[in-house]
This record gives sequence, C-alpha cells and structure tokens, in this order.
Amino acid sequence: MKRRIDLNEKDIPKQWYNIQADMPNPVPPPLNPATGQPITPDMLAPVFPMNLIEQEVSTERWINIPDEVLEKYLIWRPTPLYRATFLEKYLGTPAKIYFKNEGVSPAGSHKPNTAIAQAYYNKVFGIKRIATETGAGQWGSALSFACNQFGLELKVYMVRISFNQKPYRKLMMETWGAKCVPSPSPDTNAGRKFLAQNPDHPGSLGIAISEAIEDAVTTKDSRYSLGSVLNHVLLHQTIIGLEAQKQLEAIGEYPDIVIGCAGGGSNFAGVALPFIRDKIHGKNIHVIAAEPSSCPSMTKGIYNYDFGDTAETTPLLAMHTLGHNFVPAPIHAGGLRYHGMAPIVSRLVMDKLIEPRAYSQLETFAAGVTFARTEGFIPAPETNHAIACTIEEAKKAKEEGKEKVILMNWSGHGIIDLAAYDAYLSGKLDDYVLPDNEIQGLLKELEKYPKP
Amino acid sequence: MKRRIDLNEKDIPKQWYNIQADMPNPVPPPLNPATGQPITPDMLAPVFPMNLIEQEVSTERWINIPDEVLEKYLIWRPTPLYRATFLEKYLGTPAKIYFKNEGVSPAGSHKPNTAIAQAYYNKVFGIKRIATETGAGQWGSALSFACNQFGLELKVYMVRISFNQKPYRKLMMETWGAKCVPSPSPDTNAGRKFLAQNPDHPGSLGIAISEAIEDAVTTKDSRYSLGSVLNHVLLHQTIIGLEAQKQLEAIGEYPDIVIGCAGGGSNFAGVALPFIRDKIHGKNIHVIAAEPSSCPSMTKGIYNYDFGDTAETTPLLAMHTLGHNFVPAPIHAGGLRYHGMAPIVSRLVMDKLIEPRAYSQLETFAAGVTFARTEGFIPAPETNHAIACTIEEAKKAKEEGKEKVILMNWSGHGIIDLAAYDAYLSGKLDDYVLPDNEIQGLLKELEKYPKP
Repeated sequence: MKRRIDLNEKDIPKQWYNIQADMPNPVPPPLNPATGQPITPDMLAPVFPMNLIEQEVSTERWINIPDEVLEKYLIWRPTPLYRATFLEKYLGTPAKIYFKNEGVSPAGSHKPNTAIAQAYYNKVFGIKRIATETGAGQWGSALSFACNQFGLELKVYMVRISFNQKPYRKLMMETWGAKCVPSPSPDTNAGRKFLAQNPDHPGSLGIAISEAIEDAVTTKDSRYSLGSVLNHVLLHQTIIGLEAQKQLEAIGEYPDIVIGCAGGGSNFAGVALPFIRDKIHGKNIHVIAAEPSSCPSMTKGIYNYDFGDTAETTPLLAMHTLGHNFVPAPIHAGGLRYHGMAPIVSRLVMDKLIEPRAYSQLETFAAGVTFARTEGFIPAPETNHAIACTIEEAKKAKEEGKEKVILMNWSGHGIIDLAAYDAYLSGKLDDYVLPDNEIQGLLKELEKYPKP
Repeated sequence: MKRRIDLNEKDIPKQWYNIQADMPNPVPPPLNPATGQPITPDMLAPVFPMNLIEQEVSTERWINIPDEVLEKYLIWRPTPLYRATFLEKYLGTPAKIYFKNEGVSPAGSHKPNTAIAQAYYNKVFGIKRIATETGAGQWGSALSFACNQFGLELKVYMVRISFNQKPYRKLMMETWGAKCVPSPSPDTNAGRKFLAQNPDHPGSLGIAISEAIEDAVTTKDSRYSLGSVLNHVLLHQTIIGLEAQKQLEAIGEYPDIVIGCAGGGSNFAGVALPFIRDKIHGKNIHVIAAEPSSCPSMTKGIYNYDFGDTAETTPLLAMHTLGHNFVPAPIHAGGLRYHGMAPIVSRLVMDKLIEPRAYSQLETFAAGVTFARTEGFIPAPETNHAIACTIEEAKKAKEEGKEKVILMNWSGHGIIDLAAYDAYLSGKLDDYVLPDNEIQGLLKELEKYPKP
C-alpha cells in the first residue's frame, strides 16, 4: 500500500484554475459603500497592482502561472499527498484518508502559494515595497519569505496582542528580512489615533488592515497585499487541488469527500475548487468546509453585503458574515478568526456546492492530538478543524460500512502553536461556541447593508 | 534543471550500512573503567536491549531494516534531495550544491531515523518503557514521537536550563504523550544529590545521562536510549546517505565533496559513511565534518579513551575528546555541545578518511541567514555549521573554476530556534572560540586514561 504519492516537479500544474468561468451564479460585484455602485478596477489601483486587479475580475478558466512563479514554487512544491494509514487503522475505518501536506513550505503553511504569486506580480508591475497586516502571523511570515525571494521590501503590521504572544512569528519574518511592527503603531494616522486613545491598545485585524492600506497608498512605489478572501488569492491556491487531482489520478483514485478548514476561505478553496468544477459537471462529490463554532460565518451568519474589515475601509463584499463588528473569541486557530468568508466560497455555499460545518475548539484539538499520535505530524490549530471533520466522516463510513475516499487539505504544521496543545492537554482550553442570541444581535446590524 | 530529486517509497533502502565491515582499522573496544578490560555485551544488558547490543558490536556489512521500521520510516521518508539552485546563483559558483532535507520529519531533524529503530528493537525485546536524557530537546522529541508510534512509555530527563529556555521542545514531547522532567530531578538518587547541593541547579547533559541510566536500570521492563555517538545509532542513520546515493545516481551525479555537521557524529555519519565506503574502495571523494570552534573535539582534541558522560557512568570510549569535564560555551547549536565524538567517526578521522573543520558561531549564523534568504528554509543552528562549510567549498570551487558536486546533509529546521536568529540579527550573539591554553589544560586531564 502506498503511503505517499509524490508528483514529479516537471508535472507541476502550469495554470491556476479560475472557478469564475464555471460558477452557476457569478460572484456579485464589490460595492462602493458611499454610492452603493459597483467598484471599478481603477478605483482599486492605489491599493493593488493592476495585473492582480485584472486577475481579481477575470473570468478566464485557466490562467498561466508565470515561469518565475513556477521556479519559486519548486522550492517546496509539488507537495506530497499522503495516505493516512495509521489514522485509518486507529479509527478502524474502511475509508481511505488522503491528506495534502501544505505544511512543508518554508513558512509552514499553504500561504506562500499566493504570497509568491502576489510578490511576483507586484515586482513586474514596478512596485518596490509591500505593506500588509497579519493576525497570528502565518500570512506575514509567508509574505516575508516571498518578498525576500523577489527582492521586495515588506512592512508587516501585526496585531499587538499576537505580536506579544507569538514572538516566533515576528522572528521568522525578520529572518527573511521583513520589518514587523505591532499594530496599532505610531507609523500611521490610523495607528496614532488608536494609540492616543490607549497607549497599550491590544490591536485588532481591522486596525492592522487600516494601517497597512494607509501605508501602501501613501508611500511611493508601495501596494497592499491580502492573504485570503479575494478572488485572486483563491485562484493562486488552486494549485493545491490541481496537484491533488494529478496525484490521486496516478493511483486510480477519486475522492468521494473533499475537506478543508475555512477562515477567510483560501486553503479550503485551494483544495476544493478544482473538484467543485467536476461537481458542477455532474460528479457525485461531497465538499465540506470546516469552520470554528466560535466564528461560524457560514453555518450561523447570513449571506449579505458587508465590509471586509472592522475599520470600514474596504468595499462592500457579498459574503457570509457575522457582521464586521464581530470580535471572535480568542481561539488558538487565529487564522479562522474572521467575521466573513470569501465571496466565491460564500456564493458556492448558497448554490449548495459546499456544505459548511462548525467544530468547537475542544473537539478540534482532540482531533489534532489523535492525528499527531497516529500520523506523527503535529497540525496547526486551524488544520485541526479539517481533521475533526475528516475523523467524523471516516467514522460515518465505518458505520455505513462504505470504503469512501476522503481528501483533506493539511494546511499547516503546529510547531509554533505548541503552547495551544499544552493548554489543551492540561485541561486549560476553553470551548467557545457562539450563543444564538448573540448571533441574532450581530446579524441585526447587517440590515442596513444591501442584500446580494 | 531539476531542483528536487524524489525517491519513490518503494525504492527506500531495505538495509542499513555497517561500516565496521569495511574500516581499515577497527574501532577499539569500550573499556570497563574499573578494570581497564573490554566491556562484554552482557555487561551492557541492564542498560540496552540485547538486540541493540548485538548491532553495536556487529561486523556484518548490511543489516536488514525490519518491515515494522520501514513502515514507520514511510511517515516522512524517503526525504527529498534538493539542488540549492538559488544559493548557487547567489554565490555565483560553478559548484552544484545538493542538500538532503532531513528537516521534513515530524520532529524536524534526522533524529527519528534511530529513534524509530531503537523504539522498535526495545519493543520486540519486551521492553515497555524507555528513559533517556535530552539537552536542547531534539533527541527527546524524536524519541517521544518514536515511542508513541510503538506504544512505549517514555520518560525524558531534560537539562533544566534548556527545559526553562526551550519550552516548545517539552510541549512537543508531551503532545506525543511522553513525560518530560527538568534534570536534576527529585526522581532519582543522582538527581536528589545535585538538588540537595543546589535546589536551582541548572543541570548538565552529564547529570541527565546519570539520571536516565539510573532510572532505566532500576525500573521494571525499562531500558536506556542514546541519540548519538554509539555504533548502532550511526548505523541507523546511514539511511540518509544510502538514499542520497540512489537519488544522485538517478540524475547521473556523484559527489566530489560530502559535508555534515558533527556534535556526537550521528547525522554526519548518516550522510557520510556510505560514501566513505566508496572512498575506502578507491573513489576520490572529500568528506568534511563541520564542528563548532567552541567545542572542537576533532580539530583540537586528542584521540584517547575517555568517559562518554560527565558523571563517569559509561564505559571508556576510544574517541576524539576534549575531556569529559569540559563544559562547552552556551552556543545555540545545542546538539553540537558534546566533549567527545563517535568512536567510528574518530577512528575514520585518524585514518584520514574524514577531514574535520571548525566554524565559529557567528560565521555559522551568517551562513544560515544566507541559506534562509536564498533557499527559503530556515536551518537549525547545528545545520548552519554544514552550510558554512558548504559555502566555503562552493566559493573555493568558484576561485578554482571547477564544477564540483557538493552533497550536504541539511540535518534539521530552525523553526524552534528562531530566538537564536533574533540574537544574531540584532548583534547580540557571542562568537565563542575555545582558547588554546584552555584546551591544553583540558587535555592534560586525559593523561590518566589509556591511549587506544
């Protein structure tokens, strides 16, 4: 029995898959919050380079991956696909569980798939410097690696509470030559405003986004970069699913179930979109997005226009949301603490092509420890949501006595998140589930924004 | 140009290579310190299981890898061999640099190669529980992973100062279900003795070894396990070099130079021994062991009988040593802070089959940052010694205008050692070089022990 299915580097996919060519219903356009009218590409030009804006709105099915991006992808791609034989045996399931290991990248997660692409497009557009924000630090470190590879300067505004709690992420960014400051910072008007209110302000992703955008639009030859949610980010991540398709095909398999964890939606979309294309064309395949019960945008939120950030600096996006003022509980899966969901993923949920499911923090860590103690690799807290769902489906296959094929995206390793495992193992972890009455209040605030 | 050479899992080597069958001069036997007579296998029986003792003294050239060990190796093996194209380009060297990435294991280093094997042999010998020591924590975490895979209990005595400074390593061990206590501990006579002298004793590797051995020999169904130095440990690590030989052969290459870092000698031996076999049979190949200038056992020590540990509990081993009372400077490459060197490696140095070279802490970190900013992956501080040597040789090839083929063992990643990079990048790292007069004093103490 094969455990690992490698893909030869010469067989790496040469194009990304753009699901906007195949969606039964298109993604509604982003709206200008002031006018309620659709945003035009030129309005985004101070924020993103035009070549990425063109990708954002493209409906071409296949988009060529530039040679310079492919060359950098080969630093860690194609990533291995593993059959989780030890987990299967432990569960006693007839299901075959495959996991795509995106944790082998230098930054330890799937994030470099789009970071490398974005750094490249900024570079060829003549941009010298990027500004971005990061919460728990996965995105900031991935973009640091990518900017270093293309010789771009990078400044990362990192949410202050994470900056203090997760020093290793900042050190990783600096090792790759980026500058990382805690947000709110004294370096922007937005930051100074919040610091004036409270010199020890813990920061938030919303504030950090505001700082990074202000920095990008006011600094020469600079642009802003976002690590999830947007169409072009999801596009770049499809290399995950495209590789997995080739790997499964090589061993004569096709998945019955495809699973990813979802915060902004990019790693989930990366593995799922190429398979959802098949589903649109009639394949019988079950696609599940696993989100936290503490931040259940798809399972408890509504599909509505809303701001992408707390500070209301972005256009209005048509997405599943809990409202941009929602502050998720401090779960360790920092990458899943986002009030909204990628517009593409949200639209596909509405079209019943994706089933969202929510998992509580304790059940995800139980799943992560089971994985670490069977398959060896220690998963990121975000990834534990996909594992919880995979174990649930594998147990179901056992009850039904069916030899189902499950494909899971193993989005990253948890080596820098070991303190979270310690808290779990010593019984100190809280099991946050967002109460329904709180959700009702949040959703009420969304009534003033348009319905898609 | 290929960047990564994978080895299909079906082509994983099925035997380890035992260089004791081919050495021009055999390794002198370990001596009983009380009698000066060679140790017999049965004298080691309370410490190690007999199947591992048999491997320790075996002169069979090829030793079959049990199926159960191969099955576990497939969790992360075969490991990828990479061509360091970005580093080559940065250096402008005509040399081709290949690195074997042992950092992809669940524990992040080469250590699981022997940890899995040792856990297996203990298991089949009927042992239920292992005790070991760990300094910086690499070995303890690797053995935790391995014992978890085979359902063995594990207790790790971790040098207290590292226990406090490197909490992530302990958390990793616990995630895999092992018990890790700071040493000196109140759990052994040896530990209690040191705690009575000083309740805040910082500990040392020597004390931790004493505690682990005492624990193993006084607890039912328990044995002790060591992560380097011994013949059977080096044997298990030869899978690294055997895989690399197959990978290089697949692309029609053969190395002119083979490089590894050396503390106790196991990762270096792992990559080097299969090539030294070729060298013994006439191949023109240059094998270099890179050690720290702060702990230069091969370049400044002498070849003598000495204790393997500070507490004088082991037999006398014939090896390069700075004396077992030597306390190396607190460099970040904790895995290289050992007063001696594996007897096999030492004997091969005496026979001029290995050239040892020493590198200072600052030059190794400069090399590590160069690697991280070209090849992306952040190396362990130990690995940085191999990289410093590789860069030196690649520059020499450039001066000579020769297209040399260099193979380096990339023994582990530095994700848990980022604080060391921070210290380096902020100019706070000391550049320890052991002064010659101090070395003279250390070597004088060795005069009372036999010469091999």
